[in-house]
Amino acid sequence: MSTTTHHEVTITADPALPTIEIVREFDAPPAAVFRAHVEPELVKKWLGPRRLTMDILRWEAETGGGYRYVHRDESGEYGFYGSFHEVRPAERIVQTFTFEGFPDGVCLETLTFEDLGDGRTRLRGVSVFETVEGRDAAMASGMSTGVTEGYEQLDELLAGQDR
Amino acid sequence: MSTTTHHEVTITADPALPTIEIVREFDAPPAAVFRAHVEPELVKKWLGPRRLTMDILRWEAETGGGYRYVHRDESGEYGFYGSFHEVRPAERIVQTFTFEGFPDGVCLETLTFEDLGDGRTRLRGVSVFETVEGRDAAMASGMSTGVTEGYEQLDELLAGQDR
Repeated sequence: MSTTTHHEVTITADPALPTIEIVREFDAPPAAVFRAHVEPELVKKWLGPRRLTMDILRWEAETGGGYRYVHRDESGEYGFYGSFHEVRPAERIVQTFTFEGFPDGVCLETLTFEDLGDGRTRLRGVSVFETVEGRDAAMASGMSTGVTEGYEQLDELLAGQDR
Repeated sequence: MSTTTHHEVTITADPALPTIEIVREFDAPPAAVFRAHVEPELVKKWLGPRRLTMDILRWEAETGGGYRYVHRDESGEYGFYGSFHEVRPAERIVQTFTFEGFPDGVCLETLTFEDLGDGRTRLRGVSVFETVEGRDAAMASGMSTGVTEGYEQLDELLAGQDR
């Protein structure tokens, strides 16, 4: 049973723009939250919904690098890949993202790590899709469960309960 | 003096969406137009406005690769970089793009090569920005000159007049 504080996550889909904005606070400084996004042994402990396991096939979290990973559950596996357009330590990550089950779909994600002081961070993610329909399909895919549970697992990792 | 046919380029900025769509036909088959987008020795012969020269510092035109180049004229140099999210031969290229003079700006570009038959290709590029303001800034930067002149140079390259 976890006693870690879980802050609320805000997921906003602008009706007029093909974007999803996700804002979440963490009780850890930007350097720690950033590290959990770039070190593969940490990433696989928290990214995605609780029921899935994650195998990382490629992971070069640096400007010009890329990644590929597979999420697995009892019904199958789901591959994802993309490029790290920019990795600016403890400040910003810009990456592309494709679900291999829908190979023509792609979005561009910008994560910013804002220092709130007192060892806290506001993480803001903006995903831009090619069309509003593509964004709506992503929203309908159950992403909010993955985001909510993933960030709860990240809270637990940052609190040192899962290390 | 060139006698190559130059088709019209259509550049569309949707008032409501943060996108730029560029459509242009070429009198060459998709494989040839694609090759001129992935082989660096060909790319540097046509990309950008006529007055600029191009030095390529990194060029890995494959899924998961990246690029960096510098355009130069008499007043200075302009660096650009990005990642190749996907390179699907003779069909599709998805890449990110940043002008180093505006390091927080990034867009995601999808190029598709449509076979029109009779050795002709319709090239369609869609660039998605994070905001409508970012898109408007790109439109105001004089990109239409670079696109128009670049594609005229590409016509000449494809016609074999510049090889």
